[in-house]
Amino acid sequence: MHNTVIVRYGELALKGLNRGSFEQQLVLNIKDCLKKNHIEFSAVKKVRGRIMVYSADDCKCLENVFGIVSISPALETEAGMETIKQEALKHYTAGTFRISTQRIDKGISGSLDMNREIGQYVVDNSGAKVSLKSPDVDIGVELFNKKAYVFNRTIKGPGGLPIGVTGTVAVLIEDQNAIKAAVMMMKRGCRIILVKKVPIDTKELEKYAYGFRIKEANDIPEEAEAVVTSETLETLQKRDYSIPVLRPLIGE
Amino acid sequence: MHNTVIVRYGELALKGLNRGSFEQQLVLNIKDCLKKNHIEFSAVKKVRGRIMVYSADDCKCLENVFGIVSISPALETEAGMETIKQEALKHYTAGTFRISTQRIDKGISGSLDMNREIGQYVVDNSGAKVSLKSPDVDIGVELFNKKAYVFNRTIKGPGGLPIGVTGTVAVLIEDQNAIKAAVMMMKRGCRIILVKKVPIDTKELEKYAYGFRIKEANDIPEEAEAVVTSETLETLQKRDYSIPVLRPLIGE
Repeated sequence: MHNTVIVRYGELALKGLNRGSFEQQLVLNIKDCLKKNHIEFSAVKKVRGRIMVYSADDCKCLENVFGIVSISPALETEAGMETIKQEALKHYTAGTFRISTQRIDKGISGSLDMNREIGQYVVDNSGAKVSLKSPDVDIGVELFNKKAYVFNRTIKGPGGLPIGVTGTVAVLIEDQNAIKAAVMMMKRGCRIILVKKVPIDTKELEKYAYGFRIKEANDIPEEAEAVVTSETLETLQKRDYSIPVLRPLIGE
Repeated sequence: MHNTVIVRYGELALKGLNRGSFEQQLVLNIKDCLKKNHIEFSAVKKVRGRIMVYSADDCKCLENVFGIVSISPALETEAGMETIKQEALKHYTAGTFRISTQRIDKGISGSLDMNREIGQYVVDNSGAKVSLKSPDVDIGVELFNKKAYVFNRTIKGPGGLPIGVTGTVAVLIEDQNAIKAAVMMMKRGCRIILVKKVPIDTKELEKYAYGFRIKEANDIPEEAEAVVTSETLETLQKRDYSIPVLRPLIGE
């Protein structure tokens, strides 16, 4: 039912960053994630504010790739109204439904007109009822790249920034909270190097490690641009390092 | 319709802190807020996991006092079933309703039994319909301190820790984000001293300044236990201070 996966990322997340490097890194991280999870794909392409993954798999593993806001396994098809209507009908499953059109390419006709026309076709051919407020099936139609994309599923991503866009930090593993601190820094686009002060299982971090490999070191390595601790205001200590000390849990 | 205001604070917020000092500071900050807003009150008392403000005012200003989870202007009355029923009826306004009883004192009867009995009385005397899922009026009954408290309004507070429980920090006002960083530190219980590096309007911070007065200084003062900056990962700088540097916006 699908031949591609639409990957959406946040425009808002681009503040202060170079948009090009954000997108380039995200494409690399997506490929890394697919390879690590043994998912077959023919291409990963940046297309007008989206990234398209050409794969017959639904690529659910991408839900752990930072920088991704959501993904939809979709059918890429030609952008003609007749084709779109027929594909929308095939994407109807059961219960009430709604058509949600988004035109990134302008052209055919207005989004609201399209919602109505496609919706009418689905009603006529399935007898299904429309519910604009809380449909059982939300059939999405996106128009961009001179193609139409039809889908009925959207999987949430973790948001944040792609790992690799904001540098490398050393995370002091001093207590269980350090895992949380490390995930926060990864979500802000950092590659991490673990400095294990106490023996804590850091396996959970591998789940998000796309676009780089987590390293371990016995001391703060040269390449680290900052030291990350798991301190809160209640456990605050003075730390003397030649690089900034970051305490992502300080507001917890 | 009310002679007291129930103040609820989070048990969870007490992690790592002395519970006594949390409550003591919160009582002081509540009194300070009421005075600054010219609200008349006869007493502020700590009673079994709640703080009671004896006032004819609804004390809405308390919604800006950190540490408070919610407040309810309530009628304090004797804990007899007949009295509670009559007061619950008076607290019914229009539409569907529900009775939500919480017994902190055990005694009279089970909460569910009380909900049923009081609800029946309101139905019999008003003809109103019950809606357990989404009532128009949620009539609360709390039993503690050998008294009953009846109310139909709950106003959300800002949560966090009472200002004063975690020390004093100097906030570098370097850009507009510094206001956000300062609020985050106040919410974590810090008294703040503003070090104005650029001329930015800091008036908004006064809204939360209960339990202390915001000071300004030209340089990091002796009493500061940490320096707070508004840096994000994208604007990170090395800072040389003899006290810890906190960057509450690092995860933004």
